[in-house]
Amino acid sequence: MTRDDPHGAVKALTFDVFGTLVDWRESIARGAREMLVPRGFERDWHFFADRWRLRYQPALEKVRRGVRPWTRLDDLHRENLLAVLKEFQIDGLEETTIGELNRAWHRLDPWPDVVEGLGRLKRKYILAALSNGNVGLMVNLARHAGLPWDMILGAELAGTYKPQPEVYDRAAALLDLAPGQCMMVAAHAEDLQAARRRGFRTAFVPRPEEWGPKPARATPEGSDFDVKAVNFYELAARLGC
Amino acid sequence: MTRDDPHGAVKALTFDVFGTLVDWRESIARGAREMLVPRGFERDWHFFADRWRLRYQPALEKVRRGVRPWTRLDDLHRENLLAVLKEFQIDGLEETTIGELNRAWHRLDPWPDVVEGLGRLKRKYILAALSNGNVGLMVNLARHAGLPWDMILGAELAGTYKPQPEVYDRAAALLDLAPGQCMMVAAHAEDLQAARRRGFRTAFVPRPEEWGPKPARATPEGSDFDVKAVNFYELAARLGC
Repeated sequence: MTRDDPHGAVKALTFDVFGTLVDWRESIARGAREMLVPRGFERDWHFFADRWRLRYQPALEKVRRGVRPWTRLDDLHRENLLAVLKEFQIDGLEETTIGELNRAWHRLDPWPDVVEGLGRLKRKYILAALSNGNVGLMVNLARHAGLPWDMILGAELAGTYKPQPEVYDRAAALLDLAPGQCMMVAAHAEDLQAARRRGFRTAFVPRPEEWGPKPARATPEGSDFDVKAVNFYELAARLGC
Repeated sequence: MTRDDPHGAVKALTFDVFGTLVDWRESIARGAREMLVPRGFERDWHFFADRWRLRYQPALEKVRRGVRPWTRLDDLHRENLLAVLKEFQIDGLEETTIGELNRAWHRLDPWPDVVEGLGRLKRKYILAALSNGNVGLMVNLARHAGLPWDMILGAELAGTYKPQPEVYDRAAALLDLAPGQCMMVAAHAEDLQAARRRGFRTAFVPRPEEWGPKPARATPEGSDFDVKAVNFYELAARLGC
């Protein structure tokens, strides 16, 4: 029991992954550069990463609205990759190269405070990924980045994408916990607000560098989360770990 | 690549849990003794454990055959506990005591070779539980016993119980692997045979003491599994770990 979990009610912490735990922008830029420069392409690889990522929410939205059936994030990433390669006038790649480049999302590096912070939190809490990434992607990413999950939950187990309510509901049900025994941890207010509407407690850990040196989006008004912490060291301390 | 994985095709090992990884009989007998002797009940607690476990397969079978809808193992265990308490003429327990006793299945101890063996295997392979236990039970059990899962798969994610084919199919699909890239590890031939029918490779690790000093059931004929190992040390060695 701590100031931020005053009744000791929280049993599990559920985590957003892309942006909150791992630095997709640097990792994707590096992966693309390492694969495509030797093939003769010189581009702004951070811009390439940004453009690939910007196609993420529109692709998810079609699944959320039922315009297209459940499709795994690996497959959406691949469709978006083909579009962004075209946009950057990168052509002639072999299928195996495209597949390998798409798997750069399985090899994202964690922010520097994440692995130690999760290790501390795991002593006291159940730790679960609650991501839009499919299970296979999350398994590979956890092994690459050293994320010590007790369980991988998320979109694929619910058949739709965050912030749809089913994703949070299914996560709590699979853990056999009441929503109020779960605390969502994310760098994105929309994710936390959606979790809170399903009864989760919430912890906000901003990642101002997620999109690089550009100014971060301001936290929307009304985002009075249960915990705010500047990084995972502080999160662990605030939760008594 | 080793003799037992000659083409290096296997990416994930999927594990039966009750009996194969953990000694349910000793752990349940101990848990029941610790809770019920102080309340004035003296019984043969190993026999109590056996009788509780013997109600397991008939309860699962009703779900497999669709006679009753999907029901989590925690709930089946509790129904069976009420029946076995009656059988042993143990009455007057409070609801909280019954609930706590049912959670003895969340605190089963591993066989002595398991934690080190899994640690070695994890360096090379994705490790996943593929159990009839529900996710919440498996999360707590893994934390108690030190089972280093990359993922918890199994019955609850398929909506039916092993050895129904859907449980193996769903496991491979969630890992985004072909069945032939998965190897089922179990002490029970029926489980391995069912996995093999879905295209999994198979590893048999007998646990002759699962049911105590009684003679173990013989391995059925035709059970030519890809790997046989006397324990998890040998399994790791056979798989080059």
